[in-house]
Amino acid sequence: MRTALVIGTGLIGTSAALALSQRGVAVHLADRDPEQARTAAALGAGTDETPDGPVDLAIVAAPPAHVADVLADTMRRGAARGYIDVASVKGGPRRELQERGLDLASYIGTHPMSGRERSGPLAATGDLFEGRPWVLTPTRDTDTEVLNLALELVSHCRAVPVVMDADAHDRAVALVSHMPHLVSSMVAARLEHAEEAAVRLCGQGIRDVTRIAASDPRMWIEILSANPGPVADVLDGVAADLGETVESLRALQSADEAKRRGGAARIADVLRRGNVGRQRVPGKHGEAPAVYETVGVLISDQPGELARIFADAGRAGVNIEDVRIDHATGQQAGLVQLMVGPQAAPALSTALSERGWSIRH
Amino acid sequence: MRTALVIGTGLIGTSAALALSQRGVAVHLADRDPEQARTAAALGAGTDETPDGPVDLAIVAAPPAHVADVLADTMRRGAARGYIDVASVKGGPRRELQERGLDLASYIGTHPMSGRERSGPLAATGDLFEGRPWVLTPTRDTDTEVLNLALELVSHCRAVPVVMDADAHDRAVALVSHMPHLVSSMVAARLEHAEEAAVRLCGQGIRDVTRIAASDPRMWIEILSANPGPVADVLDGVAADLGETVESLRALQSADEAKRRGGAARIADVLRRGNVGRQRVPGKHGEAPAVYETVGVLISDQPGELARIFADAGRAGVNIEDVRIDHATGQQAGLVQLMVGPQAAPALSTALSERGWSIRH
Repeated sequence: MRTALVIGTGLIGTSAALALSQRGVAVHLADRDPEQARTAAALGAGTDETPDGPVDLAIVAAPPAHVADVLADTMRRGAARGYIDVASVKGGPRRELQERGLDLASYIGTHPMSGRERSGPLAATGDLFEGRPWVLTPTRDTDTEVLNLALELVSHCRAVPVVMDADAHDRAVALVSHMPHLVSSMVAARLEHAEEAAVRLCGQGIRDVTRIAASDPRMWIEILSANPGPVADVLDGVAADLGETVESLRALQSADEAKRRGGAARIADVLRRGNVGRQRVPGKHGEAPAVYETVGVLISDQPGELARIFADAGRAGVNIEDVRIDHATGQQAGLVQLMVGPQAAPALSTALSERGWSIRH
Repeated sequence: MRTALVIGTGLIGTSAALALSQRGVAVHLADRDPEQARTAAALGAGTDETPDGPVDLAIVAAPPAHVADVLADTMRRGAARGYIDVASVKGGPRRELQERGLDLASYIGTHPMSGRERSGPLAATGDLFEGRPWVLTPTRDTDTEVLNLALELVSHCRAVPVVMDADAHDRAVALVSHMPHLVSSMVAARLEHAEEAAVRLCGQGIRDVTRIAASDPRMWIEILSANPGPVADVLDGVAADLGETVESLRALQSADEAKRRGGAARIADVLRRGNVGRQRVPGKHGEAPAVYETVGVLISDQPGELARIFADAGRAGVNIEDVRIDHATGQQAGLVQLMVGPQAAPALSTALSERGWSIRH
């Protein structure tokens, strides 16, 4: 790939443009708002001048509602050899383009799975996609040349290409992203009118479950509006478990022992299926399942305490895989939970104990 | 408090006994299984010999199903001046004791809110309760002397006493602990039979939402069985939001624009209420809400990288409040997210940049 055209210079478009520019691709930037394209150009993402002729790859990073329009327009004027979009839902845009009678051999719907707490070109960075899955949804009619251009983009962005069917992608993100987001919001929504005394008892469990409920509703309405069917289907499954669980809890209050036993068995089944499902969630490195051991270390809340722990762990040759700092409610002292590979845990405990740390198992 | 009797030497009982022993209280240990009491004694939690006469405080830490029996028996034989239990639900035991005609002036139901991934005396530690809320549920008929004994216990355990009505406590833990646990399990359960390609797309969001779904179903069946009514009531609220959200998502697929707009508005409302509820979740230090800024730093996955970051942060005088290591899928390089007070964020970014770290905003 020598030339690219990025249409839509928000977070995703500008980040991809930065990555391509850094790898020597000549990138042209366009946006409905020319000021946005100028900002992206000023950040080193490319030039906001119109290309002389067709580029190798056109990357449409417009807001979801406009993706099909922008793609159709770009394809009709023959702006590139290959065309991709980066919207978070893939079935809809493809169908819209088909309905418009466009030849889709030169088009691949794609979806880079990277976090976006912030938006706009100023939040962009060339390493936004590094190590993240980037879903590609070619069909049997896709030009191999275009697939290779898309794979080259993914490679330049140092993302991990994952090939999927467009509708399978939409069902997958409904399951692993959209449904959990809505459910997290619903758990958090229960706290809206809760008594202060109850809220004080919140611990790490509900803190983790509700973390993503803090996201921007406007962005999420756009995402959900583009994928309502698959999300509703997954939520239907949750609703069935939820309804049965409420019934089972009511059965636990029954005077009839058989009913109580039946209720307990059905609740145990949901918890057990939750165990099995959780086991399938990949760890940070993509391996499944993540099996870490936790070594707890008590610290005071002073600058430098953590540095000393990590330095001592490093000296012992132990690689810490994840960290959780579990400060105590209303106090400054806290517990640092160090997650390490199972073979490393005893060595780490011993090394830290020897250096005077208070280890909690 | 000079003497105490701990009945039930599992994780909670033995941890409390260790804390009391370490503060000079003479602790007697008893368990249905004498071997368990001997183990706790061997760990330094006290003596497994029977006390000569009534102790100051009897702490009943038996499994939930046996709490009322053990309390009634202990109270009838006048084993102490004051009696408490530490079960995770508080309304039921009180009512059971009342039904048995016991004088409850000398009894307080209590609940130390501390995590317990492991169980048994060998997992016990004298600092298990440090900084955690410990709920006390006295009534207007409770002896002040007994309340003071319970407060002394909480103080010896360095926990934070929280006084609540017994039924309000049960509703509160249904809301902030039991309901989120079940919902987390239900989200995870959706992954049980998911396609491998879908599971590969899991990110940090679903990883956080489903973390507590990995817990032991047997322990949770006991907890939920003791509090079915309040948990069912809270889940009913979630079910109502869930049902409406499924309907709203279906409305988004309607040909009727008014229906689509109505659906979007109702989904936006759930997301917005989720924002408000999430804002109320206290941070690690118990202050509400936690307002941290995040500074992202790219690292390689080598021992010592984190140590150097923390050392550099410490040298800049910045106290890191929380850490998240967000390793990239399938790659070893990762992003460390450092959470700091808002005033500290620019200083930290500058200090780390100057020392050659790659900062991501």
